[in-house]
Amino acid sequence: MLDCLFCKIIAGEISSHKVYEDENVFAFLDIKPVNPGHVLVIPKRHSATLLETSDEDLIHVMKAIKKIAAAAMRAVGAEGFNLGVNTGAVADQVVFHTHFQIMPRFSGDGRDLWHGEEREDLVQIAEEIRGELLEG
Amino acid sequence: MLDCLFCKIIAGEISSHKVYEDENVFAFLDIKPVNPGHVLVIPKRHSATLLETSDEDLIHVMKAIKKIAAAAMRAVGAEGFNLGVNTGAVADQVVFHTHFQIMPRFSGDGRDLWHGEEREDLVQIAEEIRGELLEG
Repeated sequence: MLDCLFCKIIAGEISSHKVYEDENVFAFLDIKPVNPGHVLVIPKRHSATLLETSDEDLIHVMKAIKKIAAAAMRAVGAEGFNLGVNTGAVADQVVFHTHFQIMPRFSGDGRDLWHGEEREDLVQIAEEIRGELLEG
Repeated sequence: MLDCLFCKIIAGEISSHKVYEDENVFAFLDIKPVNPGHVLVIPKRHSATLLETSDEDLIHVMKAIKKIAAAAMRAVGAEGFNLGVNTGAVADQVVFHTHFQIMPRFSGDGRDLWHGEEREDLVQIAEEIRGELLEG
């Protein structure tokens, strides 16, 4: 896509720290990593958000993620990783080309995940989601 | 798996706020949601972490996630969502049955994603990851 930063990176018009490429998938280092080895994995075919990415592209990306995450962990000596996909500006998606983030984690790295609180309205919310799934 | 909390939820031995089920996938509300509509999506076949989940199960899960995330957003009126998978205790994985978290997001909800800092060693790290991929 003409004005897409990540499409330009795939095309080599903008340089990146590439770690992996195959026919359908491209992966490169995040330039502002949460931890060393923070990798962005993207389908080559443009889609704006995860909801618009084809099933075919998603399986290509997921297969690559398993390989790349294992390699990134070995390369930086991490013991685990978080995988994340932000969908929508409100969820902190900045570049509108679907990207999966592999963030290696280390013991005592000071990163902390979100935690929620117990809620009373789970029965009602579950019912609403099931209703939306039926209406599709 | 005998001692797995999520396998027991799938089997109905432990109750949950189910939102979706098909032959290969099960989804239910997180009991400590980050935001309303926080859903856990899991493959029915047990695997401890994402790295051990089969490609086949991953595509079933990803297909379901697109449907469930769209429904959850409509149900709670969210404008976006974060998808997350924690792999390893160091990455805050608590239950060792692969699970994808759909976390709906709202404007001004006070949630903030991790942010990293610029690094000087990206060339070296990219090279190390590519090396690990080759040795794979």
